[in-house]
Amino acid sequence: MQYTFAERIKNVKPSAIREILKAVAQNPEIISFATGSPSTESIPVDEIHEISEHIFRTMAIPSLQYSITEGYPPLRDKIKERLKDVFNIGQDFDEVIITTGGQQGLEMTPKIFCNPGDTVLMENPTFVSGINAFKSLEANVVGIEMDNEGIDLEKLENTLKTHSNVKLLYLIPTFQNPSGSTMSYSRRKNVYSLCHKYNVIILEDNPYGELRFRGENIPPIKAIDTEGIVIYNGSFSKILSAGMRIGFICAPSQIIQRLVIAKQVADCHTNVFFQIVTEQFLSHYDVDAHVEKIRNIYRERCDLMLKVMNTSFDKSVSYKRPDGGLFLWCTLPQEADSMQLAKLAVTHNVAFVPGCCFMVDDTKPCASFRLNYSTPSREDITCGISQLGQAIDEYLKKENRR
Amino acid sequence: MQYTFAERIKNVKPSAIREILKAVAQNPEIISFATGSPSTESIPVDEIHEISEHIFRTMAIPSLQYSITEGYPPLRDKIKERLKDVFNIGQDFDEVIITTGGQQGLEMTPKIFCNPGDTVLMENPTFVSGINAFKSLEANVVGIEMDNEGIDLEKLENTLKTHSNVKLLYLIPTFQNPSGSTMSYSRRKNVYSLCHKYNVIILEDNPYGELRFRGENIPPIKAIDTEGIVIYNGSFSKILSAGMRIGFICAPSQIIQRLVIAKQVADCHTNVFFQIVTEQFLSHYDVDAHVEKIRNIYRERCDLMLKVMNTSFDKSVSYKRPDGGLFLWCTLPQEADSMQLAKLAVTHNVAFVPGCCFMVDDTKPCASFRLNYSTPSREDITCGISQLGQAIDEYLKKENRR
Repeated sequence: MQYTFAERIKNVKPSAIREILKAVAQNPEIISFATGSPSTESIPVDEIHEISEHIFRTMAIPSLQYSITEGYPPLRDKIKERLKDVFNIGQDFDEVIITTGGQQGLEMTPKIFCNPGDTVLMENPTFVSGINAFKSLEANVVGIEMDNEGIDLEKLENTLKTHSNVKLLYLIPTFQNPSGSTMSYSRRKNVYSLCHKYNVIILEDNPYGELRFRGENIPPIKAIDTEGIVIYNGSFSKILSAGMRIGFICAPSQIIQRLVIAKQVADCHTNVFFQIVTEQFLSHYDVDAHVEKIRNIYRERCDLMLKVMNTSFDKSVSYKRPDGGLFLWCTLPQEADSMQLAKLAVTHNVAFVPGCCFMVDDTKPCASFRLNYSTPSREDITCGISQLGQAIDEYLKKENRR
Repeated sequence: MQYTFAERIKNVKPSAIREILKAVAQNPEIISFATGSPSTESIPVDEIHEISEHIFRTMAIPSLQYSITEGYPPLRDKIKERLKDVFNIGQDFDEVIITTGGQQGLEMTPKIFCNPGDTVLMENPTFVSGINAFKSLEANVVGIEMDNEGIDLEKLENTLKTHSNVKLLYLIPTFQNPSGSTMSYSRRKNVYSLCHKYNVIILEDNPYGELRFRGENIPPIKAIDTEGIVIYNGSFSKILSAGMRIGFICAPSQIIQRLVIAKQVADCHTNVFFQIVTEQFLSHYDVDAHVEKIRNIYRERCDLMLKVMNTSFDKSVSYKRPDGGLFLWCTLPQEADSMQLAKLAVTHNVAFVPGCCFMVDDTKPCASFRLNYSTPSREDITCGISQLGQAIDEYLKKENRR
């Protein structure tokens, strides 16, 4: 049979990262800086095991039976508490819903806000599965460039002026994926004012927010949200376990009510057992010490990567030292195409994700690329970055000959 | 701020069942026949505990780390095997994807097939969260009545003739929710031929398919799908655990490829730990014996309920003896409104779901209602059904006085 698929799904291509990861999976020789996975050392396996034992002993049936769509109430309470403690987030009008990983929030939010053709603005580059989630709900996605302080204010306001039906602004203000950069506090306030002025909801995605390993904390935009225009999308994937798929949204309760309806039809509710695991971890373990341990690992890996890059990369390659998160963003000289470098790098047994993959328009060549330092070992960082340096040299030589 | 939500979500009302369940939750005196939950005895807690121990000992990290969207490969293989063994399902062109519970299949299928305004046909009454999933993707939902053998063939063909853009036919052929009825084999074949003729995809939902406790097995429609027009939606919620949210879809690989894209943006992948739990259960335990145990529980509960109904219900109330599944469908005399009875029943400390909740047009009164026999204890069935009998008497007396 010839299948005729919906337009909304025709616009979404499988992520190029997936294809690169498949190539990596087929060749164990390749050192990969291409994933977005947390370090395996960041997963508190023994604690999760201990908690699981406790659940099987004391509340096995409720952990394995149907539950409510909003999520396990004690977990929702714990999240509200922690959001208040860590980020000073949470107004009286705010409520929390548990999601099946941070990704679910990126699909449900446009689902409840965007009619087909409505516009969603976002940083360019940004998280690919964010772009694809918006596209899959027939939103018109518009990317806005960033400068040193974050999303460009002037370009943002121009776009808000010229587009009549902008519903959402999607932002990853802290340790952005893929750029690794963090929006300044003054920029956050200005972006908030602008969105308030133009009646646009901000979807603030903060999966890496707790992973600062140097510099001063900057409050999330949600912390200044007195007007109820910010939807805060959180996740336990980077501090507890990504495989368990536990995320959450904190937003005004009117919005949460609609998200509950969207979630009811999406997957009924999130895995109950791991909702309880997460609640127990937050209640009975030293989360701050655990997060501190992850930060130390990432600081060390990031600094090692920067050190090897400094000696191995051609001086024409630029990059910024990240203050946290999982990613380092590198830029080749103008006119370069990092996709070509990625293909060459695979022959040097190194993989990374070229910048075009993170662009709203992914058809144009892009000189930048993303390196992940959370997954590879110290040895792989040393060895792989030096191999990548050689690939860069070869690429630049070829390009100059043309 | 005044929020403006998308049209698609405005059309979806929170399920009335939820509201009834909330009332039940607030009054422990109420005996509830309103849920759709499996019996707690149906959950193999000790086995799941044992498997979890094994996972923590031998593959903790992969069970808690990111994984692939398609699902844990050994689980997909086991499901293909079991579908073949139990139902003779699976052509060369078919593939399997793991979903976050059966519900996810009901949202992703219209998402990849239906443009806004495209039509989805379904049995009337049917599963509420199915109806809502299709509505939430802007499909035009059309309900088709059933007769003793299942969905009405003539009405189905008339609708196929008069609607130009019918994309999907949603069916629960076996132990349907809410009617408890099972489509005959000849009707299945005729429905299949009709859909093939009109180029309509069948979404066959089979969450209760293994729960037959009397009568002869009837093959699923997917078992006769030589043309690749049937999407089979399965779930482990009724034979293993509902809280773990593990379901699957078996469909032609071209369709699975699109579902992978839809799932990537929906929740990245399903909880890995419980995918492994499910695989291990299928591989190393006696699933058939476990299913047989559940069947025996449900047969006994169903027969007890029928027995008490026989002595407690007014003779004007009709019902059919189910051959499996979780539900009994009762019908009051014509012109009666089961919603009124539901409200009266709560004052008699009994709850059930009135039939209108399962109708595509839920605004009209409905004489039928659904009783669940999988959750309540023997004592609650005896006591609750007799209380419901009294509520019915009171309701009928009132109605006759009018």
